[in-house]
Amino acid sequence: MIVQQYKEMLNGKSVIRQLSEFATERGKAIGYENVFDYSLGNPSVPAPKEFTEALIRMLQEEDPMTLHGYSPSLGITSVRERIADSLNERFGMHYKKEHIFMTSGAAGAIAHAIRCIAQPEDEILTFAPFFPEYNPYVNLSGAKLRIVPANTEDFQINFEEFENMLSDKVTAVLINTPNNPSGIVYSVRTIERLADILKKKSEEYGHDIYLISDEPYREIVFEGVESPFVSKYYDNTFLCYSFSKSLSLPGERIGYIAVNPACKDAETFVNMCGQISRGIGHNCPPSMIQLGVAEVLDKTADLSVYERNMNLLYDELTRLGFRCVKPGGTFYIFPKALEEDAVLFCEKAKKYDLILVPADTFGCPGYFRMAYCIDTEKVERSLEALGRFVKTEYDIR
Amino acid sequence: MIVQQYKEMLNGKSVIRQLSEFATERGKAIGYENVFDYSLGNPSVPAPKEFTEALIRMLQEEDPMTLHGYSPSLGITSVRERIADSLNERFGMHYKKEHIFMTSGAAGAIAHAIRCIAQPEDEILTFAPFFPEYNPYVNLSGAKLRIVPANTEDFQINFEEFENMLSDKVTAVLINTPNNPSGIVYSVRTIERLADILKKKSEEYGHDIYLISDEPYREIVFEGVESPFVSKYYDNTFLCYSFSKSLSLPGERIGYIAVNPACKDAETFVNMCGQISRGIGHNCPPSMIQLGVAEVLDKTADLSVYERNMNLLYDELTRLGFRCVKPGGTFYIFPKALEEDAVLFCEKAKKYDLILVPADTFGCPGYFRMAYCIDTEKVERSLEALGRFVKTEYDIR
Repeated sequence: MIVQQYKEMLNGKSVIRQLSEFATERGKAIGYENVFDYSLGNPSVPAPKEFTEALIRMLQEEDPMTLHGYSPSLGITSVRERIADSLNERFGMHYKKEHIFMTSGAAGAIAHAIRCIAQPEDEILTFAPFFPEYNPYVNLSGAKLRIVPANTEDFQINFEEFENMLSDKVTAVLINTPNNPSGIVYSVRTIERLADILKKKSEEYGHDIYLISDEPYREIVFEGVESPFVSKYYDNTFLCYSFSKSLSLPGERIGYIAVNPACKDAETFVNMCGQISRGIGHNCPPSMIQLGVAEVLDKTADLSVYERNMNLLYDELTRLGFRCVKPGGTFYIFPKALEEDAVLFCEKAKKYDLILVPADTFGCPGYFRMAYCIDTEKVERSLEALGRFVKTEYDIR
Repeated sequence: MIVQQYKEMLNGKSVIRQLSEFATERGKAIGYENVFDYSLGNPSVPAPKEFTEALIRMLQEEDPMTLHGYSPSLGITSVRERIADSLNERFGMHYKKEHIFMTSGAAGAIAHAIRCIAQPEDEILTFAPFFPEYNPYVNLSGAKLRIVPANTEDFQINFEEFENMLSDKVTAVLINTPNNPSGIVYSVRTIERLADILKKKSEEYGHDIYLISDEPYREIVFEGVESPFVSKYYDNTFLCYSFSKSLSLPGERIGYIAVNPACKDAETFVNMCGQISRGIGHNCPPSMIQLGVAEVLDKTADLSVYERNMNLLYDELTRLGFRCVKPGGTFYIFPKALEEDAVLFCEKAKKYDLILVPADTFGCPGYFRMAYCIDTEKVERSLEALGRFVKTEYDIR
C-alpha cells in the first residue's frame, strides 16, 4: 500500500542538486576552492551578529519553559505584532498581527497560501523563468501550475501570453520579484499593469483572483533600482516572505505570510493557514527561531558582496558577447547560452570547472543561471576560466 | 475561491483550548496560582541545562554559515546517524541513518507516515481513548480515521472490537503508548497479540498493514512498569518520536520517524517523506534545533515530578471513590466521571477552580483527563478542592 504519487517523485532528481553534487565531487579531486560552483542559491555571508547575540541572551536569561514553550499555531503573538509594525513602518501598510502567519520560510508560505485559495482543477499561473519548486507546492495541492512563457527582452512579464492563458479556472497568480533565476526586479509599471488585469478579470469571471507574491529577495536590491512593494498595488495579495536570504538563515526555515488587510477574507485566511498546518502536523516554526528573528527584523546580513559579484560577472559576460539583462537584485544572473541547447552548453562548461545551471527546468530553455553567492575572490578567478571556455568552445575573442 | 474544507474547520474549537483559555481568564480574577489547571499537556520542568549549554556553545563557536545553513531535506546526516546509534544502543535495534527522517515533532512524523501508506478511501484504525489531533493528521490526507472503542477495564486494546473493524481497507493501525490520555502503557502481551493479528491479516488481505507507533511519552514511564519497544515486535513499524516531552521542548517542534529496518521499503519510505514535505513547503526542521537535540539524545529533563504528582492524584482519587486505572507513564490520569455525562461533570468542577477535560473528544465519553504537568505544590493544594467538589456535588464522603 505504498503511495505511488510520492514514490514516483523519487525518480526526478533536481538538476541543481546533481550539479551541486558534481561540484562537491570535483572539489575532492582538485580542491573545492578551484571549482567555480555557481549552482546553489545558498547565502555566502554570515547571519548578522545581532541575531547570534539575541539568541545567546535568550538562552542565558529567559525561562526555558517560556523560551521553548508551545507557540500558538499561528505564531507567537508578539512576533506577529512586531512583523506587522515593521512592515507598516517600512512600506506604509496597515497590517495587524491578525494578518500575519508564521511559516517555514517562503516555501511554507507559498504552499499554505495556495491551499487557502486553490482546489483540484483550479489553475495557478506563474511566469517563466520560475523557481522549479513551485511545481510540488502547487501540484501536490491538487491544483495545476501553468507557466506563462518568458519575456526574454527584459524578463518583465509577457502580458500578451498572460492574457491568453487567463481563464475562469485561474484562482491565483504567483510572482517572484526580485526574481530567481533572472535577477530582474519587476517595475512599478509591470506591477500596475498586472494588478489592472487581475482586477478586470476578477470582475469578468465573478470571482477573486489572488496574487501570491514570493519575496525572499526583497532586501537584495541593487543601486538605483526601484523595487515596488507588491501588496500596495493589489488588495488580494498574499505576501510570502523568508528570512533565509536577508538574515542568511536558510537552514532555520523561518518566514511568514502577510495577507493584505484590504483583502476581504484576510483574517479568515490566516486562521485557515493554521488548519492547513494541522493536517501535515507541522503546526508552526520553532518558538526560539521565531523569537530570534523578531529581535532583528530591520537588520540584514552584509549583502553588499552580491552587488559586487554581479557587477564583475555582468561586465565580463557582456564583454565576452553574452546577451544578458542586468540584474536589479538577488544573487542570480541569467545569460543566454552560446548555443541553442543550454544543457549541452553547461555540460561543456564543466570541463573548465565552471558549474552553470541550464534553465530548462526554470521554464526558459536556452538560458543558464549563475548563483553568485560565493566569495568575490572566487568570482574574480572564475573570469579567466569563463574566457577560456568561451574562446575554446565557441571561438569568440 | 476560498477553500471551504479549511474554512469549515475554523468552527470546531478544541475543548482543551477552550478550557485552557477559561483557566487563563479565571487566573486573571483570582490569581493563576489558585486555578487548578489540569487542561494542557505542556511540560512543567525546564529543558536539561546540557541542551541550553550546547546551543550557546554552537552559537559562540560554530561558523554561522554552517550552523544556520541548509539541512538536507531528510535531516542533517550526522544527526540522523546519532539518532540511529542511540536507538540501536538503547533498544538493540539495527537502524542506519537511512531509516531516520527528521520531523516537526511527533505530529509531523505521524502525518508523514500516514501519507506514505494511505490514500483516499483507505482506513486507519486507532484505539480509544485517543489524541484528537489524529483526526486532522489522517482526514486531511484523504484517508479515514476509525476509532476502535476503548477497553475500559484496563485501557489495553479492545481486541474483539478491533478484529471486527479490521478489513481489506485498513492500511495502518495507529497506536500511542504510553498513552495520552489514559496514561496506560501497553503490555508486552498487548503488543505481541496486536502484532500477531496484523501479520495474519496482512497475509489474508494480500497487502501489508503498517503500524504507526506514536511515542512522545517513551521516556516518561513509572517505577516497576515495563514499556516494550514497539518496533521490536512488528517489522512494518513507523516509530514516530518527539523530543517535546523528554527534553521539555514542545515549542521547538522537533522529532523523527524511524522506519524499522526490517520493513521491506524502509529506505524508500524515508525518501518519500522528503517528497511529502516538499509539497507543503516545510522541507525539514531548523538546522540549529536538529544539531541541538543531537547533543543531548540520551538525556532528559528531570521527569520525576510527573510520577510524584501521579501518585498524589491516584491515591486521592481512589480514596474519594473514583474508578481509575493507575497510569504507567505520561503525565495524564484518566478517571471515570461521577456522573454519566463527563461534560457536565467537568463543567461543575469549574466552580471549584478545577479544570478537568471531558474525554468525549478522546473517544471515551464518561471519563475525564487530568494533565498533571504542574507543580507538585499545586497538585497538593488541589486535593482539598477535589474533595470539596466531590462532597458538595455528589455527596460522597
